[in-house]
Amino acid sequence: MKTEKIYYGAAYYDEYMPCDRIREDMRMLREAGMNVIRIAESTWATMEPHDGVFDFTHLNRMLDASAAEGIDVIIGTPTYAIPAWMAARYPDILAVTRAGKEIYGRRQNMDITSPDYLRHAERMIRHMLSHIQGVKHVIGFQLDNETKAYDTRGPRVQVMFADYLKEQFHGDLDALNDHFGFHYWSNYVGSWEDLPDVTGTINGSFDAEFRKFQRKLAADFLKWQAAIVEEYRRPDQFVTQNFDFDWRGCSYGLQPDIDQRSAAEALTVAGVDIYHKSAAELDGASISMGGAIGRSLKKSNYLVLETEAQGNPGWLPYSGQLRLQAYSHLACGSNSVMYWHWHSIHNAIETYWKGVLSHNLKRGAVYEEVCRIGSEFTLIGDKLKNLQKENRAAFLLSHEALTGLSEFPVSPSLQYNEVFRWLYDALYRMNIETDIIYEKDLLLPGLTESYDTIFVPALYSVRAETIPALRQFTERGGQLVATFKSFFSDEYLKVFHDDQPHGLTDVFGMTYDRFTIPTREIMTFHDPAFTDPAIHADVPVSVQEWMELLEPAGAETLASYETAHWGECAAITRNRFGKGTAVYIGCYFDEEILEKLLSSLMAARGFDTETLHFPLIRKCGRNDAGNRITYLFNYSDAPISYHHRGTDAHALLTDRTVTDGTELVLAPWDVVILESADA
Amino acid sequence: MKTEKIYYGAAYYDEYMPCDRIREDMRMLREAGMNVIRIAESTWATMEPHDGVFDFTHLNRMLDASAAEGIDVIIGTPTYAIPAWMAARYPDILAVTRAGKEIYGRRQNMDITSPDYLRHAERMIRHMLSHIQGVKHVIGFQLDNETKAYDTRGPRVQVMFADYLKEQFHGDLDALNDHFGFHYWSNYVGSWEDLPDVTGTINGSFDAEFRKFQRKLAADFLKWQAAIVEEYRRPDQFVTQNFDFDWRGCSYGLQPDIDQRSAAEALTVAGVDIYHKSAAELDGASISMGGAIGRSLKKSNYLVLETEAQGNPGWLPYSGQLRLQAYSHLACGSNSVMYWHWHSIHNAIETYWKGVLSHNLKRGAVYEEVCRIGSEFTLIGDKLKNLQKENRAAFLLSHEALTGLSEFPVSPSLQYNEVFRWLYDALYRMNIETDIIYEKDLLLPGLTESYDTIFVPALYSVRAETIPALRQFTERGGQLVATFKSFFSDEYLKVFHDDQPHGLTDVFGMTYDRFTIPTREIMTFHDPAFTDPAIHADVPVSVQEWMELLEPAGAETLASYETAHWGECAAITRNRFGKGTAVYIGCYFDEEILEKLLSSLMAARGFDTETLHFPLIRKCGRNDAGNRITYLFNYSDAPISYHHRGTDAHALLTDRTVTDGTELVLAPWDVVILESADA
Amino acid sequence: MKTEKIYYGAAYYDEYMPCDRIREDMRMLREAGMNVIRIAESTWATMEPHDGVFDFTHLNRMLDASAAEGIDVIIGTPTYAIPAWMAARYPDILAVTRAGKEIYGRRQNMDITSPDYLRHAERMIRHMLSHIQGVKHVIGFQLDNETKAYDTRGPRVQVMFADYLKEQFHGDLDALNDHFGFHYWSNYVGSWEDLPDVTGTINGSFDAEFRKFQRKLAADFLKWQAAIVEEYRRPDQFVTQNFDFDWRGCSYGLQPDIDQRSAAEALTVAGVDIYHKSAAELDGASISMGGAIGRSLKKSNYLVLETEAQGNPGWLPYSGQLRLQAYSHLACGSNSVMYWHWHSIHNAIETYWKGVLSHNLKRGAVYEEVCRIGSEFTLIGDKLKNLQKENRAAFLLSHEALTGLSEFPVSPSLQYNEVFRWLYDALYRMNIETDIIYEKDLLLPGLTESYDTIFVPALYSVRAETIPALRQFTERGGQLVATFKSFFSDEYLKVFHDDQPHGLTDVFGMTYDRFTIPTREIMTFHDPAFTDPAIHADVPVSVQEWMELLEPAGAETLASYETAHWGECAAITRNRFGKGTAVYIGCYFDEEILEKLLSSLMAARGFDTETLHFPLIRKCGRNDAGNRITYLFNYSDAPISYHHRGTDAHALLTDRTVTDGTELVLAPWDVVILESADA
Repeated sequence: MKTEKIYYGAAYYDEYMPCDRIREDMRMLREAGMNVIRIAESTWATMEPHDGVFDFTHLNRMLDASAAEGIDVIIGTPTYAIPAWMAARYPDILAVTRAGKEIYGRRQNMDITSPDYLRHAERMIRHMLSHIQGVKHVIGFQLDNETKAYDTRGPRVQVMFADYLKEQFHGDLDALNDHFGFHYWSNYVGSWEDLPDVTGTINGSFDAEFRKFQRKLAADFLKWQAAIVEEYRRPDQFVTQNFDFDWRGCSYGLQPDIDQRSAAEALTVAGVDIYHKSAAELDGASISMGGAIGRSLKKSNYLVLETEAQGNPGWLPYSGQLRLQAYSHLACGSNSVMYWHWHSIHNAIETYWKGVLSHNLKRGAVYEEVCRIGSEFTLIGDKLKNLQKENRAAFLLSHEALTGLSEFPVSPSLQYNEVFRWLYDALYRMNIETDIIYEKDLLLPGLTESYDTIFVPALYSVRAETIPALRQFTERGGQLVATFKSFFSDEYLKVFHDDQPHGLTDVFGMTYDRFTIPTREIMTFHDPAFTDPAIHADVPVSVQEWMELLEPAGAETLASYETAHWGECAAITRNRFGKGTAVYIGCYFDEEILEKLLSSLMAARGFDTETLHFPLIRKCGRNDAGNRITYLFNYSDAPISYHHRGTDAHALLTDRTVTDGTELVLAPWDVVILESADA
Repeated sequence: MKTEKIYYGAAYYDEYMPCDRIREDMRMLREAGMNVIRIAESTWATMEPHDGVFDFTHLNRMLDASAAEGIDVIIGTPTYAIPAWMAARYPDILAVTRAGKEIYGRRQNMDITSPDYLRHAERMIRHMLSHIQGVKHVIGFQLDNETKAYDTRGPRVQVMFADYLKEQFHGDLDALNDHFGFHYWSNYVGSWEDLPDVTGTINGSFDAEFRKFQRKLAADFLKWQAAIVEEYRRPDQFVTQNFDFDWRGCSYGLQPDIDQRSAAEALTVAGVDIYHKSAAELDGASISMGGAIGRSLKKSNYLVLETEAQGNPGWLPYSGQLRLQAYSHLACGSNSVMYWHWHSIHNAIETYWKGVLSHNLKRGAVYEEVCRIGSEFTLIGDKLKNLQKENRAAFLLSHEALTGLSEFPVSPSLQYNEVFRWLYDALYRMNIETDIIYEKDLLLPGLTESYDTIFVPALYSVRAETIPALRQFTERGGQLVATFKSFFSDEYLKVFHDDQPHGLTDVFGMTYDRFTIPTREIMTFHDPAFTDPAIHADVPVSVQEWMELLEPAGAETLASYETAHWGECAAITRNRFGKGTAVYIGCYFDEEILEKLLSSLMAARGFDTETLHFPLIRKCGRNDAGNRITYLFNYSDAPISYHHRGTDAHALLTDRTVTDGTELVLAPWDVVILESADA
Repeated sequence: MKTEKIYYGAAYYDEYMPCDRIREDMRMLREAGMNVIRIAESTWATMEPHDGVFDFTHLNRMLDASAAEGIDVIIGTPTYAIPAWMAARYPDILAVTRAGKEIYGRRQNMDITSPDYLRHAERMIRHMLSHIQGVKHVIGFQLDNETKAYDTRGPRVQVMFADYLKEQFHGDLDALNDHFGFHYWSNYVGSWEDLPDVTGTINGSFDAEFRKFQRKLAADFLKWQAAIVEEYRRPDQFVTQNFDFDWRGCSYGLQPDIDQRSAAEALTVAGVDIYHKSAAELDGASISMGGAIGRSLKKSNYLVLETEAQGNPGWLPYSGQLRLQAYSHLACGSNSVMYWHWHSIHNAIETYWKGVLSHNLKRGAVYEEVCRIGSEFTLIGDKLKNLQKENRAAFLLSHEALTGLSEFPVSPSLQYNEVFRWLYDALYRMNIETDIIYEKDLLLPGLTESYDTIFVPALYSVRAETIPALRQFTERGGQLVATFKSFFSDEYLKVFHDDQPHGLTDVFGMTYDRFTIPTREIMTFHDPAFTDPAIHADVPVSVQEWMELLEPAGAETLASYETAHWGECAAITRNRFGKGTAVYIGCYFDEEILEKLLSSLMAARGFDTETLHFPLIRKCGRNDAGNRITYLFNYSDAPISYHHRGTDAHALLTDRTVTDGTELVLAPWDVVILESADA
């Protein structure tokens, strides 16, 4: 969604405050250059303290105080955290999960399919939306919060799942038994009544289908909320959700528990919550990855609805980092930077997830940096909003493949998102910007044509229609780069019983039927085209975690295993197919070596892989005026020198002209933004 | 409590014996110089084999046989281990804990608030006490065993907790919601009926209050037992409990699960169970720490009711260590050394927790050393009993702070007791003896005046009245030494929303509002007064686990962080306040560096920090005759030479006079005890 | 059991196939030289898709197609995996275990004592056996699959256990209380109704007896099935079970959960499932150990019913390894090599446990090696079948000791099977072949006389009759070699209360009553007879995990601890007793040192310990013709040269004569088989 300005603000909770500060806070927000707060999400009990009794005192206070300072408001439905009275009076609302019956206390513990829950949620939403109808500075709505199905799997959900399967298989039990391979270990289901609870299954197909069903429940829930909101919203008000990511102590990869691409259909704009390591460990990769997913959901600009100010212990940003992060979000196509949250909380589990203000609620060092960002946004924000990316490479991601690799793992340390990030981060460090697409996007007219290269990390489970789409992409001249564990099983995780990689042996010019876990295996590179001596000079490379024994049939061997234990076989192959090229990476290895491999592959396709490298990160796009915006980020403690090349450009932050050959020195954690008219 | 002699003995269980040996055992006890056994605790089923059927055969055998050899008896109430018939007939007696419903088998699995349990326990105690009334050589009673609430938290206990909260907050729900911050995540409680079971809570304030409530249940249980015992005991009989410690494979720190200071009000003398690593890992620190807590409970001498003979696998003592340990207990003010237990057990879970006798029940090497200790105690015990300590430094400990740091942990490896022991052990190694006080002790008249220095480890949660007491202590001339994470939240774990450290910014002459987890941060020391070149010469010191960015406002910077990432800030500060000094240690670091810091701080206060150092440990006090007793311990495998200084002294173990300048050579694991008349 | 040929084949599952390939598969089996398939086990739902509805379509297909290619069939009863309809309709069939109530999905989740389950199982077995009666090429039956009690311990099982105890103790509760030491911690049981569920117990005697009871349940279940099968089988048909092993990621040691020796009484031939590490980690030790247990169960040849083809990820065999493995099984006395399984599975939990064919179901590299083995078996199999071993050393193993060491563990990394394998593997590497016997075998006439040396690893719990048997064995001239933790408790895990080692202090010429966990303890060897300088030259050896302080009384000290901490004591002793020798190894240490110790001990008994060493492994026996068969295996990546000594021999694989002095060069992972007429 395009916006009129960069939204800059924070989540605000009047009800959490240890004292009445709302006027002071709104003034401080405005003085910091902020223009929006996000409220009400998570505070159901504030607005409905007793069953059916509504109280909008705090909501009113926030609406009034923000209006007084000219600050816009995004209102969240409060449905992700149920009140104590609800758990006490309707205990069935608490979900039954793999871990057993949920107990009251934390958020996101309810069964989102519970009729009692849905009835209460709808009443709450309708009361709140009625209450704020006509409030002009409410600019949009957030549905729920980081929604998933929270592993709900009680008896009623099992019945819903059986109904879903009946529909999926048109009532044909034999088809279900065959697709899932239920004959194995006597799991055959002879009548629908005998279908067991999925919880005990050892059948990865059955379990994966249930997880797909749970992702659908989460997306359906958001669509249901969106339909209610639609009855109330003005055309100028947007509807969003704050999608989050697979979590490894920070936002890491594709979220396994909701089909965000499908859920986003109900929204007018996608929102994301991005949290990342900071201080010595800040590298911007998670911001970039999260932004790529943000853009992918509506194929448009997105909103950063939550990101850290001071964040968790260990994330206290160095001076300058907060500003670097803010521009990094914009450089990915975000139209907002919103902190979670304004003030640090004085009780409960997120006491140490610190906000813009520390617990003393005073203007500290972090607030001062927030003010600097705000004043810059005020000056140049209009040139930065609605950035259009023009990436020539994309990743093909898939929830089914993610689930597949979780059902049949390579190793705990090498899951789907790890394979994705292995490739993604290497390209990030090389300053090759990438988009993200999903299997169903392959059918969008013109989409694959816009890319030179498609990366396919571990597409373990693959839809039937994906095979011809990738074949065609390659045949027409594209470069297809797939890793091990791709194209191995169908969408029900049944392993294909023909040659691997299924349906693409001619495209890749190779096949294989053996694989193992390397112990001390090594491989060497052979392609003389590899310019980097590190991989050219037959230096042995250690193979880790997984190796497939590729047998070329037409493909050239880029690297092969250095052992006669299993006969001669390749590790990495490249094949000409039609006008294009198909590369298959049959094993996992060190990320520096991967970078060199990808550098060779991309250089051969005309990408610039030599000029810039992390910690200097460049991100580009086109602004509303049709000009090229080039961000340069220094993600390090040391100054970096950069020589501008090409058309004259305007350095927006320093307001000076930069010509061909100009040296720009980026201070530690600094940013340069260039606007130029080049095509 | 003062005693007439050193009590030397062991726990004895006639009912556990694989054969009838009671006369032989009592003879061996007497020959070893022992004078007391501890019996009956844990043997409820022996004495009440069927519901309401009592059988005191074993009790009689032990009373008779001990009387025959002139051995005194401490009788324990057997209530901490319920009989099988009770679990079978009254299943509700088994507690519901966080892990679910307890099952029968182990001890300490019952709900100590269960009316059925209490009724049976009272009947058992009354029968036993009636039975032994008039038995002269029963010198005291032990209530239960290492009592806690065993995490009982079933529905009835939740109701009791709600009643406790109602009373605490005078029925004011708004106050409860505010103090606990229940507005967060929709946890607001609109009516008392809606108060959720605490088990699922994400609210640290709520959970911490429940743990405080559980500590109170345990203390109340002991007071209830004490009142029953009081009806039967003679004035010459004492009442005690064997308090234990936070456990890290050995007695480690303040026990989190009972308020021992409060429970001890019901006792006439405090008892402790001290277990510690032995062999190569024996250092005496846990004995010293346990003794300090023992003294703290009644501000008097205490009893060591259990300590190891051979103990757990890996604890087999070297020759001489058992004797070293025995004197170490006395040197801390204990009036007893009692082994758990006499004989090694032939079945069940403590088979390898070996006693004075091995499984063959013969006179082995350990028994021989026990005899040597016994004969020495017989000779010089009267000079050693009732030792009065005269320490000039104390630790301020707090259960609420311990709980607070567990709700909001720094890291799993740096909990409250680890911070306490970081300081305690450094002082122990420097031979600065310390006492332990609690927050409510600060109000005792004259108590703080008796100390030169008060150490405050991580007093995360602080009572309102503690702030002025510490302020006054410092102002009047004392030295206050506090670490990071002190004075951060109120007694309900609500973080203060004014400047840190709360209420003491002028006392410490600094404030801070930022903190983080160091990755590769270092600090350097600046104070030229530090005589040790290791910390004087600006050698960088690695900062670990936690760092607060202190901003001095009047204080001198003793050490500062070596980085410009967050601007200039201090790591350790010292401030003059009134006639005193306040030191704040804002981060965690290596224990050797800590020792050097404390050495400088204490030397400046006139403490002797240079003469003696671990493995030579010195402990002092005054005996009944008013003479000074000085213990010297060699906690090492190598001989240590010591030169006596000052007044002539009498070496009690060798019965010779030691004059100024005399060299004493302590053999490995040996002890020297000097009695002198100096003031 | 002697067989007419080597059975060579695989498990086959027509019902798992993604397409109809049965004729093609049987043809490929035959072409590979295979002569048997194992079917039907695990496929209950295939044959009884609805309660009481039987369908033998797949069974018929497999019987017909195998007959057409002349392939024999072993039929398994399908009872170890219950159908979904059974779990849905008879939920009580699912076992209650320590982890709670089982849920449907995986195999081996039922209560094998459930009357409902047994009734259904019997009906299924009878229908199947009736159906295939008269089918000539069914050569044998497999009962169930890797049977255990699956920790069933629900209320009904507890009642069965109480009945078992009543019988065991002739209704005498006092005896039970005494034997188990139930007086400890108030666990005394005053009436049978009060006997608690064993699940919560802290009494190792009680728990161990329950585990013995569970092992008996499993054996009884197999005997019950055997009795049913007996009603149907022809005299030429065998009955077997595929016993498995304690699992450490591969077959590792004695199976803790069934008394296989007792269960095997119901069989005509013992079968085993052997899985082992492969590729770089292939060493043959688990094959050898598994074979020794296989032979021990019926004191005869056994069948390898399952072993890996490609197996788990990481087990992909190097070229040649599959063949090496096949002969390794035969060299231990197996009369079969059967792969689990023919084809790789396309769904569910064992998708990556790959068979002879990969998922593409084509002739790959592994199939080619299977063909080579098959063609060799066809040529020389008759000379290899029914190999009779003539070992002069044996291990004495015990389930009770295994359980005892699990109740009272030395350490998680040194359990019973680890102590067994410590000794076993050292001897394996030295090419000293060993048998396995159990305590009750000691009473078999003539059995102990057939051995020169009996090794006793950690016989923690010992039967009364074992003591005189070992005493007599030694007295008559045998060598007894026992490790630490032997002879410590009676069969109820009550520690003996006389001198250790119980009843054998004169045989070993030493005693001890102290033991501990070494920290930095070392020991040195003293015996000048030790020819290896590494242990002769007083080189200190690090003692690990456990040390007993042996006090020699007549025995010579082979090694002693190098410390005065506990006085002088021995680590390893050797004693002359009668005509024999008794060695006691009082601590655990490095396996290379152990090898040197055992080498000295065995050399003194006339064993050849110098000629051959791993990776060259030699295994011998006598074939049906009375000739000596000598296998030589190269378990390494490098060629090994071997010089034949003695009588002329016939190299069976190369069909050439080998005379004294002939050099044979074994290629990596190669095998040589010599037949000779020497006595």
